Amino acid sequence: MAEKSSEIETLLAELGRSFHARGWALGTSGNFSAVVSRDPLRLAITSTGLDKGCLTADQFVHLDESGTVKHGSGQPSAETALHLVIVRVRGAGAVLHTHSVWSTIVSGEHAARHGLWIEGYEMLKGLEGVRSHTHREWLPIVENDQDMPKLAGIVEALLKKHPEAHGFLLRGHGLYTWGDDLAQAKRHLEILEFLLEVIGRSRRSESAASSQH
Amino acid sequence: MAEKSSEIETLLAELGRSFHARGWALGTSGNFSAVVSRDPLRLAITSTGLDKGCLTADQFVHLDESGTVKHGSGQPSAETALHLVIVRVRGAGAVLHTHSVWSTIVSGEHAARHGLWIEGYEMLKGLEGVRSHTHREWLPIVENDQDMPKLAGIVEALLKKHPEAHGFLLRGHGLYTWGDDLAQAKRHLEILEFLLEVIGRSRRSESAASSQH
Amino acid sequence: MAEKSSEIETLLAELGRSFHARGWALGTSGNFSAVVSRDPLRLAITSTGLDKGCLTADQFVHLDESGTVKHGSGQPSAETALHLVIVRVRGAGAVLHTHSVWSTIVSGEHAARHGLWIEGYEMLKGLEGVRSHTHREWLPIVENDQDMPKLAGIVEALLKKHPEAHGFLLRGHGLYTWGDDLAQAKRHLEILEFLLEVIGRSRRSESAASSQH
Amino acid sequence: MAEKSSEIETLLAELGRSFHARGWALGTSGNFSAVVSRDPLRLAITSTGLDKGCLTADQFVHLDESGTVKHGSGQPSAETALHLVIVRVRGAGAVLHTHSVWSTIVSGEHAARHGLWIEGYEMLKGLEGVRSHTHREWLPIVENDQDMPKLAGIVEALLKKHPEAHGFLLRGHGLYTWGDDLAQAKRHLEILEFLLEVIGRSRRSESAASSQH
Repeated sequence: MAEKSSEIETLLAELGRSFHARGWALGTSGNFSAVVSRDPLRLAITSTGLDKGCLTADQFVHLDESGTVKHGSGQPSAETALHLVIVRVRGAGAVLHTHSVWSTIVSGEHAARHGLWIEGYEMLKGLEGVRSHTHREWLPIVENDQDMPKLAGIVEALLKKHPEAHGFLLRGHGLYTWGDDLAQAKRHLEILEFLLEVIGRSRRSESAASSQH
Repeated sequence: MAEKSSEIETLLAELGRSFHARGWALGTSGNFSAVVSRDPLRLAITSTGLDKGCLTADQFVHLDESGTVKHGSGQPSAETALHLVIVRVRGAGAVLHTHSVWSTIVSGEHAARHGLWIEGYEMLKGLEGVRSHTHREWLPIVENDQDMPKLAGIVEALLKKHPEAHGFLLRGHGLYTWGDDLAQAKRHLEILEFLLEVIGRSRRSESAASSQH
Repeated sequence: MAEKSSEIETLLAELGRSFHARGWALGTSGNFSAVVSRDPLRLAITSTGLDKGCLTADQFVHLDESGTVKHGSGQPSAETALHLVIVRVRGAGAVLHTHSVWSTIVSGEHAARHGLWIEGYEMLKGLEGVRSHTHREWLPIVENDQDMPKLAGIVEALLKKHPEAHGFLLRGHGLYTWGDDLAQAKRHLEILEFLLEVIGRSRRSESAASSQH
Repeated sequence: MAEKSSEIETLLAELGRSFHARGWALGTSGNFSAVVSRDPLRLAITSTGLDKGCLTADQFVHLDESGTVKHGSGQPSAETALHLVIVRVRGAGAVLHTHSVWSTIVSGEHAARHGLWIEGYEMLKGLEGVRSHTHREWLPIVENDQDMPKLAGIVEALLKKHPEAHGFLLRGHGLYTWGDDLAQAKRHLEILEFLLEVIGRSRRSESAASSQH
């Protein structure tokens, strides 16, 4: 278990540094987690306030299902409650949260409709269970909030209401996505960030592919 | 032959990783192939579902002209039939397929006209056989389809109808291009991606170079 | 002290090279400083006219509070007076100045109002002392001037008038920000550059998050 | 001399690879030269048709003032005549030519006026001899042409008509700039590419800094 855990944290740290390089986790933004044990639940998650450009494997702590630190030093990310809800409701093995320019812009533009439909893109097929570009993906948008227990409750209700969703946006804040394992979560993140950039750059053009309804 | 094959796959894997770094092959998108033998035909092609950010030479399989795997483990890319058609009809030595933000956007904007003219750019001269920036290049756009035999038939007809084309777009999906060898295919890819970005960024300006007719 | 100083300059040089790679310090633009001693004040600052793409630790000079070079060869940056004012008025431990495309554009668009409000973005929470995305951050814009004593006086008055500001823009010139130490200054720089890009890219859209008042 | 020449070519090759990484020299676009001897004139220049992403020091040839190859194998760049004119008329020690997305777009948008004024940007101060952001820089635009002797004649007349210019654009083709030595030419290139991106991204906004007249 120790080795597996250490390996996951090394992979998470590499991912974090690469997201920082792409501009998806500047400042101290972004947080990343992966399940290292199911029973009892142990979730490795980034400590709070770190520069993701030099993230290392020893900057993760292990939490139990209540968010109590069971291993490692440092304060877990302030958004720990959202990670735990996603792990519990979706059975996710990894949760990734980024703050990109395009997810921030798109989350504001579509906030009034509480989400956006994404449709007609081959890239959608990379989302688990999607078989065709004709798939319609609903990406919900939640109002941002500093009250974490309240926000976690809203996210839990959202996940149950949209069991087919592969991610969601926090308004003016960024993207959350997840996967059965870290590789799937990374795939979902790259796909959703790509699609948000396509939609963001297309948004003022009448003739763009009809991606929003 | 074994050495030459191994060298080609090493080069294809490097290319794949560099395209991922540029954002042209995120998620598991993109697939790449090169002919390692003409008689009998052996085509090295990426296996399906790979993260191109860490593509390695051993993640390719060898196919014969019917698409049967003759070497290597793993399922060949779902778009194998398109690669084989291009190799057969064009005599290509390498085929590259990317999913960039700009090719996705431009493919949607020009879909109703089934393609776009590109003209007036010096960069066109890097396309094989083109001698002047005054050359008019027709870049066809095909509706995306999950029925691969059907799509391969449409692409075959398209290649025969436009024997001078250096590539084509699948709507909402991305760019296919090719070359006599891998270096030429890479050159064509960089040139077409560059031109699609120029056209995409110019599209709302009346005074832009008249690239579309 | 010598070791600490050398370490700071190594970190500043790494930062400078990374900002150049992101396109935030092209040409010979940008200058960076950090306090290596408080009493007497010694400020390590980039020499003038350097290519930041290959910045090294030995390309810094040490100044006293009057701007006199006390250590190292080379002419200190022409904007030394601004760094010294920020260190004196804010008690900053590090000052970073970049010239990005978006800070240049946004500084021109909002110049008539002498600044812009930034509000509603989670990323604001990375600015020291900010606790919520509902925080309203005023980013002042100063007219650019080649008369450095005059400009330093204007900046000093500005810093005193807006004690809560985390940075300011020089019109058509770029961003200044700072922090208690180099890590905090880097965090503030990444956050403000991110927000300026979001605002610059959102500016023509009616439905964007209301970031400007 | 041999060592100095070899060093210059190593630096030119590094520059070429870095411009390719930034997307300023995709396909086989871009060419780069530096004077390795003044009397007799020997100009090291990239051979034609190279992938700049893997440019090496041995891919340069040495020319005399008439364009005859005196050293090295390979065909010199097709645009050799432009490099030689710039070296002769300006006394340049290095000439750099890139094809960026923004220089291509801006060269089309301003072609009818045969150039554009750039004014009000601090970045202008990095151009040799410029002392203030209030400087007005005229960046001429020349119609692209495949007749190289004719184009070289036009460029020669242009350089004499605008002795203060630090570069020029070829329409739909890209940017030429130069410097007394390679470091100055690189500085001019980064500055002009930066300013063209600022102008290109600002162009549809009424409130942008007044950079065009």
